[in-house]
Amino acid sequence: MDERVRLATDHPRPSRPAGAARIRVRLAGICDTDIQLSRGYMGFRGVLGHEYVGEVTECDEPEWLGRRVVADINAGCGRCAECLQRDGHHCPTRTVVGILGRDGALAEEVVVPERCLRAVPDAIRDDHAVFAEPLAAAAHVLDALSVGPERVVVIGDGKLGLLTARALILGGHQVSVVGHHEQKLQIARLFGAEAQLESAVDTRALLADASVDATGSARGIALAIALTRPRGTVVLKTTVAGPTPVDLSPVVVNELTVVGSRCGDMSRALELLHQVDPTPLITARYPLDQAEQAFQHACTRGALKVLVEPGSA
Amino acid sequence: MDERVRLATDHPRPSRPAGAARIRVRLAGICDTDIQLSRGYMGFRGVLGHEYVGEVTECDEPEWLGRRVVADINAGCGRCAECLQRDGHHCPTRTVVGILGRDGALAEEVVVPERCLRAVPDAIRDDHAVFAEPLAAAAHVLDALSVGPERVVVIGDGKLGLLTARALILGGHQVSVVGHHEQKLQIARLFGAEAQLESAVDTRALLADASVDATGSARGIALAIALTRPRGTVVLKTTVAGPTPVDLSPVVVNELTVVGSRCGDMSRALELLHQVDPTPLITARYPLDQAEQAFQHACTRGALKVLVEPGSA
Repeated sequence: MDERVRLATDHPRPSRPAGAARIRVRLAGICDTDIQLSRGYMGFRGVLGHEYVGEVTECDEPEWLGRRVVADINAGCGRCAECLQRDGHHCPTRTVVGILGRDGALAEEVVVPERCLRAVPDAIRDDHAVFAEPLAAAAHVLDALSVGPERVVVIGDGKLGLLTARALILGGHQVSVVGHHEQKLQIARLFGAEAQLESAVDTRALLADASVDATGSARGIALAIALTRPRGTVVLKTTVAGPTPVDLSPVVVNELTVVGSRCGDMSRALELLHQVDPTPLITARYPLDQAEQAFQHACTRGALKVLVEPGSA
Repeated sequence: MDERVRLATDHPRPSRPAGAARIRVRLAGICDTDIQLSRGYMGFRGVLGHEYVGEVTECDEPEWLGRRVVADINAGCGRCAECLQRDGHHCPTRTVVGILGRDGALAEEVVVPERCLRAVPDAIRDDHAVFAEPLAAAAHVLDALSVGPERVVVIGDGKLGLLTARALILGGHQVSVVGHHEQKLQIARLFGAEAQLESAVDTRALLADASVDATGSARGIALAIALTRPRGTVVLKTTVAGPTPVDLSPVVVNELTVVGSRCGDMSRALELLHQVDPTPLITARYPLDQAEQAFQHACTRGALKVLVEPGSA
């Protein structure tokens, strides 16, 4: 792991500026972006972790005190046009918890602006709520597609691909997941999708209105492009560092629309969690003082979501 | 030039099936796609040339006989859903004049389905009408953008980039062209655009709502991506064969929409030709028996549109 990136408790207690909430982390998840960041992506320095549920222990607005919360990971300035007119996800001076300019939640505590907080309903358990951030990102794919039911192929049977398939199913789409792991494809089927091994794909038979690449690999992107009908949509759901070789001629010849998709709406994710049981995605849980081992486990082939529980240390 | 590709008169007179028109070519243009096809792109076999104006000499519908025409280069089957509901540009069994399964117009004659024909108004000269096909493709960029006036950057000062800039200006957009040739950038200014050398570009100052890559190069695409604001649109206007290395992380992080754009509406192009004088783009004219020299000229650095005149041989 890059030495600028940290996981655990060996850092000073974060200070809390005005308007921010101090959150005691109850449960945090490790994401593929964390793995990329740990290898130097975006040059991040600091504490990793942007998937979490916690409890507010200090804040300015009394209503938040003691509340169980998740939070939008993007903290915009709150004053620019981007923040005032939209969600601030593209505020040019934003920080992003555990990703850009702000310490993350693979820690005992995390500090975020109060305006980012979302209260977690009592009916949603911690090990469901910890999926709010990736589920928000997954459901954001819906914003790139037509409303009507479409045939959508998701490339990648990792945790983000599987959550995306679930969100698309709930959005009324007909979904096929293509992956490499029969065990993960079983979860896709449990989530209501069709699923098949990439080696078994018949490109003509699987041709779809839209596709989602949830692999970030050149191969996954090429397959997403190949499986999309003319004038269809390809959603890129996974950030990858550095140049990826892509044959763009089918994008031009078939006039595809390729849409980059990043973070989603946390409130929508909390709504969806009343219908989504993400626990089949949990591979393992570790206490915070074993965060390094947790991270190594998350990097192993076949692993899905590895959780870290600061409270259990 | 790949030996499967031909330019001139050393091929049998094309036969005319029912429903097709035989056209005597009056003037034809050489396009960068022709240059790529001549190097083996798409494995095309046959006569090149898809930009032309001609006169109908044989047909079934008497109204076309003797008419000066251009034609949609895409010849769909006319029966599938794609053809019946839309323009047939994505008909799975289409032929494309001089590009896919159908001989082109760098020849004395070309044969195309009558349904592809568009009559050229008398007010539009041959050396304007010969630009109908590339202008249709250029104006098709408008279909990928918002209607409202946007700030658009066109990367590439070649003939397609310059025509695109002109079409965007007529569509009400504010356009900057970025290129490598001061002489070509002068034409961009003549067309009503701002223009600057790539070496002088200030990425922050030029940040646009949308960008158009009219280079097909990795460098052009990277610049188009870098110059597009978050949630903006990048239009890929140029087909390129083979993998292009692209850093897709800004597409995902900035949630860009990348749209492939191919052929446009020939009727719209003929309308636009009442307002567009494309003749500043003409570099040279050759008779058909010097088509090989014309082709070599078109390949030289600094060349814009090279025309071939079968009638002048």
